[in-house]
Amino acid sequence: MDKLYVIKIGGNVIDDDNKLSAFLLQFAAIKGKKILVHGGGKLATRLAAELNIPQQMIDGRRITDSETLKVVTMVYAGYINKNIVAQLQAANCNAVGVCGADGNAILAHKRTGAATDYGFVGDIDSVDASFFQNILQQQDCVVLAPITHDGKGQLLNTNADTIAQETAKALSSLYNVELIYSFEKAGVLLDANDDATVIKEINPTTYKQLKEQQVIFAGMLPKLDNAFAALHSGVKKVIIGKAEVLQQLITGESGTSIIHD
Amino acid sequence: MDKLYVIKIGGNVIDDDNKLSAFLLQFAAIKGKKILVHGGGKLATRLAAELNIPQQMIDGRRITDSETLKVVTMVYAGYINKNIVAQLQAANCNAVGVCGADGNAILAHKRTGAATDYGFVGDIDSVDASFFQNILQQQDCVVLAPITHDGKGQLLNTNADTIAQETAKALSSLYNVELIYSFEKAGVLLDANDDATVIKEINPTTYKQLKEQQVIFAGMLPKLDNAFAALHSGVKKVIIGKAEVLQQLITGESGTSIIHD
Repeated sequence: MDKLYVIKIGGNVIDDDNKLSAFLLQFAAIKGKKILVHGGGKLATRLAAELNIPQQMIDGRRITDSETLKVVTMVYAGYINKNIVAQLQAANCNAVGVCGADGNAILAHKRTGAATDYGFVGDIDSVDASFFQNILQQQDCVVLAPITHDGKGQLLNTNADTIAQETAKALSSLYNVELIYSFEKAGVLLDANDDATVIKEINPTTYKQLKEQQVIFAGMLPKLDNAFAALHSGVKKVIIGKAEVLQQLITGESGTSIIHD
Repeated sequence: MDKLYVIKIGGNVIDDDNKLSAFLLQFAAIKGKKILVHGGGKLATRLAAELNIPQQMIDGRRITDSETLKVVTMVYAGYINKNIVAQLQAANCNAVGVCGADGNAILAHKRTGAATDYGFVGDIDSVDASFFQNILQQQDCVVLAPITHDGKGQLLNTNADTIAQETAKALSSLYNVELIYSFEKAGVLLDANDDATVIKEINPTTYKQLKEQQVIFAGMLPKLDNAFAALHSGVKKVIIGKAEVLQQLITGESGTSIIHD
């Protein structure tokens, strides 16, 4: 099977034109097939402010009312997605930008039953791997905006980390998938404030030890649990680290690799 | 060769939620492959007003400064494109929404040398028919937003009528293409104010006669010249009429058909 990189780009890079351009040049240079998953939260927040649409965040999650859904659809699937595609094309990377509604690629349902009403937020039901495969057979990469749909005409705002994970899992039947989460830190750290304490490799055995010793800071636990869930669903490797050193993440010179025993 | 419909939807339908939904149900019911080209001018104008971005129109054409380019990218390639896709999916029409930057589908250059500086407006250089063919082999239709790119990272605002025409021409080598322009009138009229005077069929011979007799109103001449240019480039038929009766346009019960001698 061919290798496929599913790469989630962090908000700190999306929101900075210079960092984004540098990242996209590194991304374009990666050999092989790849899917780039992006958000764009800060730009959406800024546009909402300009349009006087109040934004409510609960536990770091955006409440997506109908006006906010318009904003994120415009910003994620329109402005950010198409500007990334145009920049990748300029770097000789033949990119196609889509969201989860396109080709019925990612079917979701509006979240219900939660203690908080998050509005038009989608939880994923299924990812159609063949849609992505068809594009990747002709083009170099897919740029994926975190908007899904419910199959009944409703677009839904969906967490980009989750989209990256579910897409990586679904494509594991067709490719050897490596899932890369880029964020603001150098990887999984022993000391959350010290990038020098990055753990190079974690497998299920060492993860158990690290948890028992309580040396991984709490904020990383859900991310790591998700990473191991992805591994158990067929993903070959999960890498966590800084977008600024994307190529070193792929070679293993930087970041934390989450691997099988 | 398979039949392919390239359908340009007029602004009066895009801007009206009820008309748009009714149109999309008719569109979804068309058998065979199809491409839907849309604009969204009034929604873009409204968003620009809400953002206090002054809009300058010269001879009915929008001057696209950098802030306006952001607006049309968000509205056309984001909000309108993805909402159309979601509605088509709900009608069991497997649609994929893209703009001309995706897959390097439509390469353009910034218009230069004109007496008026239109800003970030693109004139089309080439359309990659194989990009559309690849999607249409797996899905039912492509929804195409009128944003192109220059291959150097710059998105460009491009006239949707021209996009429909150039896409139809390029795909004529792979499909039997019928190009449908829907607008606010019932077709090519002998009396611009009377929908009952629609001309059912025009071929090059009768077009010459109609022009000599000066019975076609002036505003239609550029549209008709473009239609005949499309025919000469391989398109089988051009149909002009009301979006509200899309299915009758296809059967020939309504609208004007522009055909070969």
